Amino acid sequence: MMPFTRITIIGLGLIGSSLAHAIRAYLPTVRVTGHDASPQVREIARRIDLCDDITDTAGASVVDADLVILCVPPGGMKAAAMAIADDLPAEAILSETASCQASIIAAIREVLPDVTMVPAHPVAGTENSGPEAGFATLFQNRWCILTPPEGTDPIAIARVEELWKRIGANIEMMDPAHHDLVLAITSHLPHIIAYTIVGTASDLEDVTRSEVIKFSAGGFRDFTRIAASDPTMWRDVFLANKDAVLEMLQRFTEDLTQLQRAIRWGDGEALFDHFSKTRAIRRSIIEQGQDDAAPDFGRHHE
Amino acid sequence: MMPFTRITIIGLGLIGSSLAHAIRAYLPTVRVTGHDASPQVREIARRIDLCDDITDTAGASVVDADLVILCVPPGGMKAAAMAIADDLPAEAILSETASCQASIIAAIREVLPDVTMVPAHPVAGTENSGPEAGFATLFQNRWCILTPPEGTDPIAIARVEELWKRIGANIEMMDPAHHDLVLAITSHLPHIIAYTIVGTASDLEDVTRSEVIKFSAGGFRDFTRIAASDPTMWRDVFLANKDAVLEMLQRFTEDLTQLQRAIRWGDGEALFDHFSKTRAIRRSIIEQGQDDAAPDFGRHHE
Repeated sequence: MMPFTRITIIGLGLIGSSLAHAIRAYLPTVRVTGHDASPQVREIARRIDLCDDITDTAGASVVDADLVILCVPPGGMKAAAMAIADDLPAEAILSETASCQASIIAAIREVLPDVTMVPAHPVAGTENSGPEAGFATLFQNRWCILTPPEGTDPIAIARVEELWKRIGANIEMMDPAHHDLVLAITSHLPHIIAYTIVGTASDLEDVTRSEVIKFSAGGFRDFTRIAASDPTMWRDVFLANKDAVLEMLQRFTEDLTQLQRAIRWGDGEALFDHFSKTRAIRRSIIEQGQDDAAPDFGRHHE
Repeated sequence: MMPFTRITIIGLGLIGSSLAHAIRAYLPTVRVTGHDASPQVREIARRIDLCDDITDTAGASVVDADLVILCVPPGGMKAAAMAIADDLPAEAILSETASCQASIIAAIREVLPDVTMVPAHPVAGTENSGPEAGFATLFQNRWCILTPPEGTDPIAIARVEELWKRIGANIEMMDPAHHDLVLAITSHLPHIIAYTIVGTASDLEDVTRSEVIKFSAGGFRDFTRIAASDPTMWRDVFLANKDAVLEMLQRFTEDLTQLQRAIRWGDGEALFDHFSKTRAIRRSIIEQGQDDAAPDFGRHHE
């Protein structure tokens, strides 16, 4: 069964534009309407023919939708919900793709207490942002985590699940609070660490920035990809998932201090043991198709 | 002019085997002799026809060499120098490829006080190790840092430089101590951070290891590549470059604490400003050909 016939996407950045491409590619009979608060983004979206229709107001985009997906940064979710509140059809399902769920669900519930809500967070992305960064295959073989609040209509959940399956994603169900903890370690902590180390490297006196760039193939460049991600979105993620991020940072700092101590005291055995454990994780990630098996991420060497 | 005619490579891991492949591919008239302390590695090297000759002892491998390159882990450099001391021809040049130079040069000097030494550290690698991990194009368009001690014969330096140019590398000259500082930030700090975060993620109670693996595409998987690097080599690097690594760790920790504080106090402006700065570095790395411009490291999405 076709889960939806008229889908509205609000927020046409990397995720919103990828969703538009994917729905038009894999569910070509569905009508896709788009809206973005930025006139420049709407203009680009029209020029590249991203959706069947781009509306100038959020309200106009949802009037005949059976599914509305909010793809704005976490800090803009509440405002986006307010902007559609008067026009959202009673039977429409509301979804959003935020990387942190508990506080976002609560914020939207304040504005739309009775809406049927099925949040769906695709664990996929690239370091690029904006309406031209999207592509139809972004979600292929990636996980999409559904975090419906307790008591949500099971048919609504099944319809959102079917949509994501059709555009190539694998589905996982999770309680919103647990989702936020899982993402804190698999995504939020890596981003804050990457942003930090790239900042540290650009602030040295004894080593020039040009040296850091030249010799980045020694390992540093792997961190720069995610440290080039959208600053607005990531500011919002850290503020919206504060408690879980701080908890993971605390654990990370303890572990780093332990290795730092092993270096200071010349404890080679402790270092070797730790470094041997971490290879197994990479192997599993490759076996489960979540990364490339080619050495060096398959980078070209010529 | 052909810089060398008989090159010996001691230590046939990723770098040693890549050197063998590269020399045979780009300087086919040069005779390449190899040795590794491990009988298993020698057997594999013979089976894959890595060198023109593989000798069972280190001494036998150097008797007619005009260049000997030590490609063993930092902790094995002194022992490798001792193993060739009696047989090394007086006119041969000695090189080594360690990722930290000052302490290694000093250790080799103790054993071979009069040797002409031109260390050459190629800033290139993959997460794979062993004699089968090497390939001829590993050094293409990567930087190779030469750190000859003061007073080294300029002709010897020029010959080693020519060799690396012929196998595709760009050359930079550096004082050993400065090299160690540059590598501490561009390579050693990223590795210790990556090893730490992968360890932290595998030790949680509330989030299972299977969840970490499944949802690693959120950012975590970028860290796992370098955390899968050779444990022996990295143990040795941290011990041999202790002071510079501890200095960089101290700076990193201060910067992380500052961002952590911004998250705790909800200082969105400080986070946004920091996250905006770090994009420029990634852009420069791509412009200078030290990484792939394709989004997501060019990973496949289908």
